[in-house]
Amino acid sequence: MLKNPAAKYRPTPPVALSDRRWPDRVISAAPRWLSTDLRDGNQALIEPMDVARKLRMFEALVAIGFKEIEIGFPSASQADFDFVRCLIEQDRIPADVTIQVLTPARAHLIERTFESLQGARGAIVHLYNATAPIMRRVVLGLDVDGIVELATSHAAMLREQAARQPGTRWTFQYSPEMFSNTELEVARRVVDAVTAVWNASPAQPCIINLPSTVENCTPNVFADMVEWMDRHLARRDGIVLCVHPHNDRGTGTASAELALMAGADRVEGCLFGNGERTGNLDLVNVALNLYTQGVSPGLDFSDIDAIRRTVEFCNQIPVHPRHPYVGELVYTSFSGSHQDAIKKAFAARRDGEAWDMPYLPIDPKDLGRSYEAVIRVNSQSGNGGISYLLETEYGLELPRRLQIEFSQQVQAVMDVQGKELSAGDLWQLFDEVYGLVAVDAAMPQPAQVDDAGDGSVRLRARIGGVLAADGAPRVLAGAGNGPVDAFVQALTESGGERIEVLDYHEHSIGSGAQARAAAYVELRVGTRVLFGVGIDANIVSASIKAVLSGWQRALNAGSDSPAPTTTA
Amino acid sequence: MLKNPAAKYRPTPPVALSDRRWPDRVISAAPRWLSTDLRDGNQALIEPMDVARKLRMFEALVAIGFKEIEIGFPSASQADFDFVRCLIEQDRIPADVTIQVLTPARAHLIERTFESLQGARGAIVHLYNATAPIMRRVVLGLDVDGIVELATSHAAMLREQAARQPGTRWTFQYSPEMFSNTELEVARRVVDAVTAVWNASPAQPCIINLPSTVENCTPNVFADMVEWMDRHLARRDGIVLCVHPHNDRGTGTASAELALMAGADRVEGCLFGNGERTGNLDLVNVALNLYTQGVSPGLDFSDIDAIRRTVEFCNQIPVHPRHPYVGELVYTSFSGSHQDAIKKAFAARRDGEAWDMPYLPIDPKDLGRSYEAVIRVNSQSGNGGISYLLETEYGLELPRRLQIEFSQQVQAVMDVQGKELSAGDLWQLFDEVYGLVAVDAAMPQPAQVDDAGDGSVRLRARIGGVLAADGAPRVLAGAGNGPVDAFVQALTESGGERIEVLDYHEHSIGSGAQARAAAYVELRVGTRVLFGVGIDANIVSASIKAVLSGWQRALNAGSDSPAPTTTA
Repeated sequence: MLKNPAAKYRPTPPVALSDRRWPDRVISAAPRWLSTDLRDGNQALIEPMDVARKLRMFEALVAIGFKEIEIGFPSASQADFDFVRCLIEQDRIPADVTIQVLTPARAHLIERTFESLQGARGAIVHLYNATAPIMRRVVLGLDVDGIVELATSHAAMLREQAARQPGTRWTFQYSPEMFSNTELEVARRVVDAVTAVWNASPAQPCIINLPSTVENCTPNVFADMVEWMDRHLARRDGIVLCVHPHNDRGTGTASAELALMAGADRVEGCLFGNGERTGNLDLVNVALNLYTQGVSPGLDFSDIDAIRRTVEFCNQIPVHPRHPYVGELVYTSFSGSHQDAIKKAFAARRDGEAWDMPYLPIDPKDLGRSYEAVIRVNSQSGNGGISYLLETEYGLELPRRLQIEFSQQVQAVMDVQGKELSAGDLWQLFDEVYGLVAVDAAMPQPAQVDDAGDGSVRLRARIGGVLAADGAPRVLAGAGNGPVDAFVQALTESGGERIEVLDYHEHSIGSGAQARAAAYVELRVGTRVLFGVGIDANIVSASIKAVLSGWQRALNAGSDSPAPTTTA
Repeated sequence: MLKNPAAKYRPTPPVALSDRRWPDRVISAAPRWLSTDLRDGNQALIEPMDVARKLRMFEALVAIGFKEIEIGFPSASQADFDFVRCLIEQDRIPADVTIQVLTPARAHLIERTFESLQGARGAIVHLYNATAPIMRRVVLGLDVDGIVELATSHAAMLREQAARQPGTRWTFQYSPEMFSNTELEVARRVVDAVTAVWNASPAQPCIINLPSTVENCTPNVFADMVEWMDRHLARRDGIVLCVHPHNDRGTGTASAELALMAGADRVEGCLFGNGERTGNLDLVNVALNLYTQGVSPGLDFSDIDAIRRTVEFCNQIPVHPRHPYVGELVYTSFSGSHQDAIKKAFAARRDGEAWDMPYLPIDPKDLGRSYEAVIRVNSQSGNGGISYLLETEYGLELPRRLQIEFSQQVQAVMDVQGKELSAGDLWQLFDEVYGLVAVDAAMPQPAQVDDAGDGSVRLRARIGGVLAADGAPRVLAGAGNGPVDAFVQALTESGGERIEVLDYHEHSIGSGAQARAAAYVELRVGTRVLFGVGIDANIVSASIKAVLSGWQRALNAGSDSPAPTTTA
């Protein structure tokens, strides 16, 4: 049993704020957004991003519409230093985007930080030092006077360093680190001292960032803290007040929203909430919460799955299937009564009407998604869903999105036949939809794959039978960094639409001499996203057949394509 | 670009509540908890739970300490009906636990619901009907008078049905479905009418449940709605006021917490937030948030990983690595400055002191976890972490928890050698730690696996060399539902500690004739949890070698075991 926490854990003290105003406010405009995916997010990855991943993330952030992007901690890391130089020297920063970098309050690290920024058109230099009692006591060995001196002396250094590079538009930012664990009077004293050094004014504002480095209270208490600061800070009109929530208590999004009501102007966070431990604030979540309240976030998530794929590629951590707005399952309805209500509401809906759809808080189309109603085969018997039957009877372990795709095919058949399908029926339908037999017939021989000696491979494959336009065999040839890549090149060059492999899974079926491999690829062919499946004793052939299966399905689109069931 | 939402989305109207009280309150006691894992959670699964999974979930919920458990929707599903009967007839419900079942407001379904409950010692019957305008208009075709009549006439049926089974302690619960989208005056009118029919009183209270079926506003507005109901409902002293938040806006936990401050007595939700779309309220999150504020939740999460494994087994959906309190990464520190602060704070901490640890909002030991500091190899070069090097150079795709386990071994070596490790160094260390060469030498021949003809297999394996206590070969024999299971049986019966396979991954390395399989198993051996690794051309042998590797490591515990780095 969990021990009684009374002796071990202290509740967060309430804030003396009897006349609080934030609960009467609503958020009527988007805040300033700062993405820290490349700094706070990156430092919390098992595998930090390499340069290719950093560039892809930076470009994705720019495309979404972020105007302020924290790109690293250049004094702490040669890789971060080099990346800052890369963006500046290769002139990759659009004129309307400002980069931000973090520096601790130490003289040589501040110097190194400014060194990394030489030649930048504009930059935000983000200075921090710890202010919380536990950090003062066990890490810094300083009292409050010492903390104020630490902060102001280094704030002055920022001013001096900036003066030496007058060609750059400088903005200063200060974080009392672990604000959420710092006494409010101490936080105010340090911040007031720093803004005095910087002579912050409406004409030359600075950014004051209040990090809930560790989330330690309910979001209303955090909002009280922010409102207290908003009302007590000197030079408030020379300050852009910013919050940087984490999510230790699972209330990061709420903390940010209530903080905006309490006076914050700007929020820092990451796409889908990446970051140390439970992560940073999920900026996408906050932005789309605003969107459904009629407030334009000024950020573009109209192809949210493409952004998810980029984030998963860069962070190498999956987005959860139930993650708000983006998870695989969040526009999927399993319940018959929900499906019925949604169907009726779509039918009743008139063009131009405000969105009022049961069980769908946002129109999935606004994010490039579609509503999916999943009918379970034998669901009510509790022991035989589609993928359960295919797995137990045929050894197939379908990826989740493929399960959803195929379930719509099953639904279409059930709608016609009006009965549940057996495992054998399902297998036959699976074979038809993904063209397993047809693809096997079209490619009786494995492709020939040769090492080109330069890290790439060359591939030649003979494709015949039903898959060739005229029924006659064709030879496809291509090169790539592996057999699947080479085959995709070969198909593309054979004169079709652009093909991209979005996802790939493969597993063995059975073992020993009888073992075969099942491969599943999620392809984008032109504008369509769909799966292909291949099964073969040879794992390379299985992958290639899967691509062929998906490609063939895309060509046949319209006949067996999975159309959204009810979206108008 | 996202379209301007102004014309399409309507903001939630604010609540007229100028003298709200909830922002001044704190939560000082645990609410009544209701788990709906087996009802609302189960209905949102791709594969609904079979009976074995339902029983395992029910038993886990009882062990955690839930006293109210919603076990199904018996009138909608034969499987749910049968499960209710199973629990009652097999007398599986502890005397201090009350089951709850859901029923719509339809006469024959209410009858069927009471039929399912015959012989129960006690039960909560949970009646619902939709009350939101969109549902009144497009689904029910009823005005508000019609909704009140629908609710009260069926509430009366509950009373009549209950009177026919006087041997059972009955509690009635009513949900105005989609409360969050219903006008407050309408919700009040319906609820007041229902509580009048039930003659709710302090002596005979009923439960009124307010579902945010779809979360559609910031949590402070939801709290305002709950406080409004708390202050306006008739017969309030005969009502247990309950909330049932969902998480569409990512603020389910905050909504529940603020609702408790606003007057709710009870919350409904699921372990780790399973449920339709973005899920139900995460009860574990709310309970442990209370715990760190010095309030005992009355629930036991002292082995939270065991609960996670049960939930993942039953739901067949993984828990995210950054999920509050339970994710794989939430007690892992990647940042050097964080690690330094934690180390100093542990050193400064005295027994019996209140918990005040930077970056660790809860003592991981309270949940059976440990703090892990991950030192990255070459992390700052941004292009060569441990698992990156092992994957690109040796084709190994280490599961995340194994990455963390192995990184601690790497750290220990780096602490001694004071330098970064090359890919070759890492491979050598990996081989040593997981005994790859030793296990290969100990098992030169594949195990013999025979089909026993009854769905199980029998296995015989000859283990020799260093792994045998006296250096002489031994023959192990066992039976199980597959080769790994049979080998685990064989090892256990050979006279060791109890072995349990917690997790298993396998993938191919290379392709064609040279292809090999790498298997990773997470084992519990006695009280230790650790990984084993096996590599072999035969996928069965690879798995068995992985078990042998883990078992051997457990025997050697102390020499190469991964000790928590800094927990005292």
